[in-house]
This record gives sequence, C-alpha cells and structure tokens, in this order.
Amino acid sequence: MQKVRVAVDAMGGDRAPEEIVAGALEAASYDVEPVLYGRREQLEPQAQGLEVVHASDVVGMDEKPADAAREKRESSMFAACRAVGDGSAGVVVSAGNTGAMLAAGLLEIRRLPDVHRPAIAVPLPALGGTSVLIDAGANADARPEHLLQFAYMGAVFARELLEIAEPTVALLSIGEEAEKGNRLVRETRPLLEEAELRFVGNVESRDLLRHAADVVVCDGFTGNMSLKLMEGTVKTLLDTLREEITATTAGKLGGLLIRRSAGRLRRRLDPDTYGGAYLLGLRGLAVIAHGSSSRTAIANAIRLGARGVRGEVVDRVSTRLAERVGAAPG
Amino acid sequence: MQKVRVAVDAMGGDRAPEEIVAGALEAASYDVEPVLYGRREQLEPQAQGLEVVHASDVVGMDEKPADAAREKRESSMFAACRAVGDGSAGVVVSAGNTGAMLAAGLLEIRRLPDVHRPAIAVPLPALGGTSVLIDAGANADARPEHLLQFAYMGAVFARELLEIAEPTVALLSIGEEAEKGNRLVRETRPLLEEAELRFVGNVESRDLLRHAADVVVCDGFTGNMSLKLMEGTVKTLLDTLREEITATTAGKLGGLLIRRSAGRLRRRLDPDTYGGAYLLGLRGLAVIAHGSSSRTAIANAIRLGARGVRGEVVDRVSTRLAERVGAAPG
Repeated sequence: MQKVRVAVDAMGGDRAPEEIVAGALEAASYDVEPVLYGRREQLEPQAQGLEVVHASDVVGMDEKPADAAREKRESSMFAACRAVGDGSAGVVVSAGNTGAMLAAGLLEIRRLPDVHRPAIAVPLPALGGTSVLIDAGANADARPEHLLQFAYMGAVFARELLEIAEPTVALLSIGEEAEKGNRLVRETRPLLEEAELRFVGNVESRDLLRHAADVVVCDGFTGNMSLKLMEGTVKTLLDTLREEITATTAGKLGGLLIRRSAGRLRRRLDPDTYGGAYLLGLRGLAVIAHGSSSRTAIANAIRLGARGVRGEVVDRVSTRLAERVGAAPG
Repeated sequence: MQKVRVAVDAMGGDRAPEEIVAGALEAASYDVEPVLYGRREQLEPQAQGLEVVHASDVVGMDEKPADAAREKRESSMFAACRAVGDGSAGVVVSAGNTGAMLAAGLLEIRRLPDVHRPAIAVPLPALGGTSVLIDAGANADARPEHLLQFAYMGAVFARELLEIAEPTVALLSIGEEAEKGNRLVRETRPLLEEAELRFVGNVESRDLLRHAADVVVCDGFTGNMSLKLMEGTVKTLLDTLREEITATTAGKLGGLLIRRSAGRLRRRLDPDTYGGAYLLGLRGLAVIAHGSSSRTAIANAIRLGARGVRGEVVDRVSTRLAERVGAAPG
C-alpha cells in the first residue's frame, strides 16, 4: 500500500504544538506519514524523526480569515494547505481557526471546477449509526443549489468513509411537512426530490442524535448552530447531573456505581472519537479538527484524512458533481 | 383583585379534552376563571361547574393553518381567540396546532398597530436563571427590523413576567464576533446596538442552557430548531444513560441511588414547569402550550396567561413599540 503523506498544521489549535505533534507521532505508521508544518525550532525537539517543514508564521485562533489570507501566507496553516495544492501531500489536517482554514483551502488548494461552495461535513455520532451533517459551518448563507451540491458531497462522504452503499439523505427543517421550514428549505426540497439521491424528506432537529438519516443537509449557520447546541446541551446536562448526584450521600454512592456507564456514554458522543470534519469541494482534501483537540483527536483526524485519500474522496466528489452540473446551475 | 377570564381551547392538544379540562380545573381559583371552548356534550360531564362555550369544530394537529383559517372559524381554537378579540376573555390558552394558532391570533385578535410580525416567546429553564427565547417559531423567515421588535417584546416579557428590572438582550449566532453569523444576524446587530436595550452582543447556542442572557433573539426557524434540538438531545441522553446503567448490576444499583437526582434534573429542564409560550404582538394575549401538555402543564399555562393579563403585557408591548416605531421601519 502506498504511504499517504499528511500535511499537519502543527501550530494550529488551542493545545498546539505539543498535542498536535504527539497526535502525529501516534498516527504515524507504515502507511501514514505525517509531515509537521511550523516553527522548526519549536517542533524538532519533539518530532522524533517526523519530517518538519519550516513555516515562520502562525494564524491566531481569533484572527479574521481575510486578514490571515492577506498577511499569513507563510503560516503553518497556509503552507500545509499549499502542500496539498502542489501535490506534495495527499491531505492537510489543522485544528486551527476554521474560517482561516476555509480561506487557506480556497486559496492554496482551490475549488473543484464544478463546485459552487466548499462545505464542512461532520460525522455525527448518533444512536443507531453515524450521520454526516453538511454544511457544518463553511457557508453562513447558502442558496438552494448550494444545498443540493452539499447533499451530493455528503453522499460521497457516507459512501466512501462510512461505507454505506446507498446513503439516505434528509433536509434539516422544523417539521417533516414540505410546507414547513424557511424559504431556503422550501426551495431546496424540490431540488432534492428530483436529484439522483435516496432523499427521505425533511427531518427535525430533535431526531439528529437518533440517526435521522445517513446524510443531513443544511446551511452552515444552521449546521454550526446545531453542532454547538448539541455539544453545549450534553455538557450542561452531564455537569448538572454530577452536581445533583454529589449533593447527597446516596447520590454520591450511586454516582460511583454509574461512573463507567457515564464514561462510556460520554465517549460515544465525544467528537474526539472522529477527530475531524472534512472540508469538501476543493481540488484536494482537508480535515478540520476541533480547536481543543487532544493528541487522540489529532491522531484520529490524521487517520480520517489518510482514509479519505485512499477512498479517493476528492475524485469521487468531482466526478459526481461533474455528472450533475447540468442539474445544478448557479 | 379582579378575576381574569381565560379562554381555554379544550379540544386542542394530543391529550385533549381530558387533560385540558383537568388542567383548567386545577388552575381555577378565586382570581382565575377558566372558560372551556369546545364540544359541549364532551366537555360538560367533566367540567365540574366551569363555564363551557360550545364550539362545534376542532382544528387538527396537522391541519394546514391556511385551511384552518378558511374552514375552521367555528372551531374551539378560533372561538377561544375570538373571545380575546371581542374582550370577553383576557387571554386564550391552546395546546393545539401552533401554525393554526398563529393564524387564529392574527384573524381573531389581530396585530397591534405598530407590530410587523407577532412572535413566540418561550421561557427557557437555563441554569442560572430563565432566558426568554424569541422568536421560537412564528416566523420561519424574518428581517432585521423584525428581530429588533422581537427584542423589545422579549424585554417586556422578561420585565413583567420574570421580574427582571433591566433585562440583558443577546443575539443568537455562531460566534460572539460581530462579523460572524449569517446575513440576518450581521444586519440585525447594528440595530440592537443602537436600540434602547441592554444589548450584550452575540451569544453562541452552546450557552443557551447556561443563561446566556435574559432575552435571546433569533428568527423563528433558528429558534424552533434550537428548542427541538435541546429537547431531543436531553431526551436521547437521559434515555441512553438509562440503557447504559441498566446494562450492569453495579449500574442498576447506582441508577436506583441517583434516581431522585435525575428526577430533579428532568423536572428542572421540563418545559411543563412553565406550561407555555406567549404569542406576543397581538391586541390581546395568547399562550401556546406544548402539544403533548399534561394537566399540570395546562394549569401552569393558564396561570402564566393570567399573570400576563395582570402584568398588562399587551399594553406594555404596545407602548414600547409605539415609542420605537420611528426607529423600526419596515
């Protein structure tokens, strides 16, 4: 098997560079070769033989994407994306600023010819199976023809990465009926009904964690809002339960006894298990990891990236959208 | 104290009429007088002396609002709203079809002169205090000037009903920074910054259950999506925790010991505690209860309605928006 070179933005993320380098070391194997991008003097002491490519600059977590695109082309993030753009790496992984990563992807890797807008596809650990949520935040505003493309891209993801032969596709709305939803949803539904997809209709957010469909399509504002809301609700609930439990002696004892179950549950719903989201629609592959990624999350993100290269996700997205280009003007 | 007459749609809701009538009986007191609207022959045997006003028709839970408005003017829902419109009741309470209730409110109670769009205000049981989420689903599409009015209406709600003298107001978005969010959010923020409100900026959905602000403003699609997502996530999580727990003997014992804590938590987050949401922006008051409302939820919704009448919520919304009408064209 050919070794996949993974360009790792070693300076991006709240816990960079230590956890990023540790994650890269964990993921390195006979067929995965992480390459670290960042400040040589900081990275080499920890790199244990991994290749380091020097990049002098760093994109800040709160830096505006437009500023980063203008001033930070020599940053680890942009350099790592450029490696995918020029073919020296198969995929880039970053836990840095998502908006800047989108800008870096567009500039350094560039859009596929038939793609209107790249989108972020997140594997949601739902009960009953994984769902792909797309778009999870690349496009705060989107049009119906964009959502149609997101659906095709999400279906490729589900097929190649989750190994679902004929993924079901649903549209996220506030009711299952066709007449419910905002204008975007109402105008997108007919496009999905006519598409060559296994469209199963509109689904409600309350069913997102119950595997509403293999692929759930929405605009990036709604997707990002939903992800953060689920994350916040799970955290608030488990924290509160812990407080409630430790308030009484019986509760404390009970808490000890259920600790393993609660831990299993938390892991099941933990985004670190997947490590990252794909940025789809570019001429090369990019994986966006959570800003607070641990070494485990980074290692999983790198493996996810390598699997995407082996699954030829970019070629398949490209072919699928080129076939459909007549049906999706805009 | 003057007795408040509450027009109750006794036929609306998944558990109507039994639970609705039982809730009305529970709420009846020296200063709250529920009046039951619906089929006399069904209601009178249970009414125990409560006044019954006959309405021959019923709006179905899945009926299209436009159809209901055309064909169901003689339904319990429309008749109960009409009682508020003609002044024979102070407030209407319904657990029926929300879309139809919005149509009934607009037709039978009518908009306040300075209001562009009525909105649904839901008290969210957040940790650290109640937040008012507005709009929770009346307007799937909205414009910036609508959101500004929602903010004013939400602030009146927080002041009169939650007794918060100077409520903080926030805009729901996907980041705290002004440049994040969709176009609607980006265009609404400057209006809120200039408004006579204690605007504290944009908040993220992950903080919704942690009392991000006293009033959280959004369009009805986002609000409805968020409510259902929180509800679904809490339910999925507690159900899964129960499954995990009962899978082992230690877990089972632990589960017994934490049962009281878990019950307290569930009650704390239970929408039934509040009973209902206000439909604000009409010439009279309307309370929309959850479709699956129990008798307790209905009793709380009726009490919430009576408190709104005493707090003169409609007059205060009217005054507040009339003062601001120059600032909010559209």
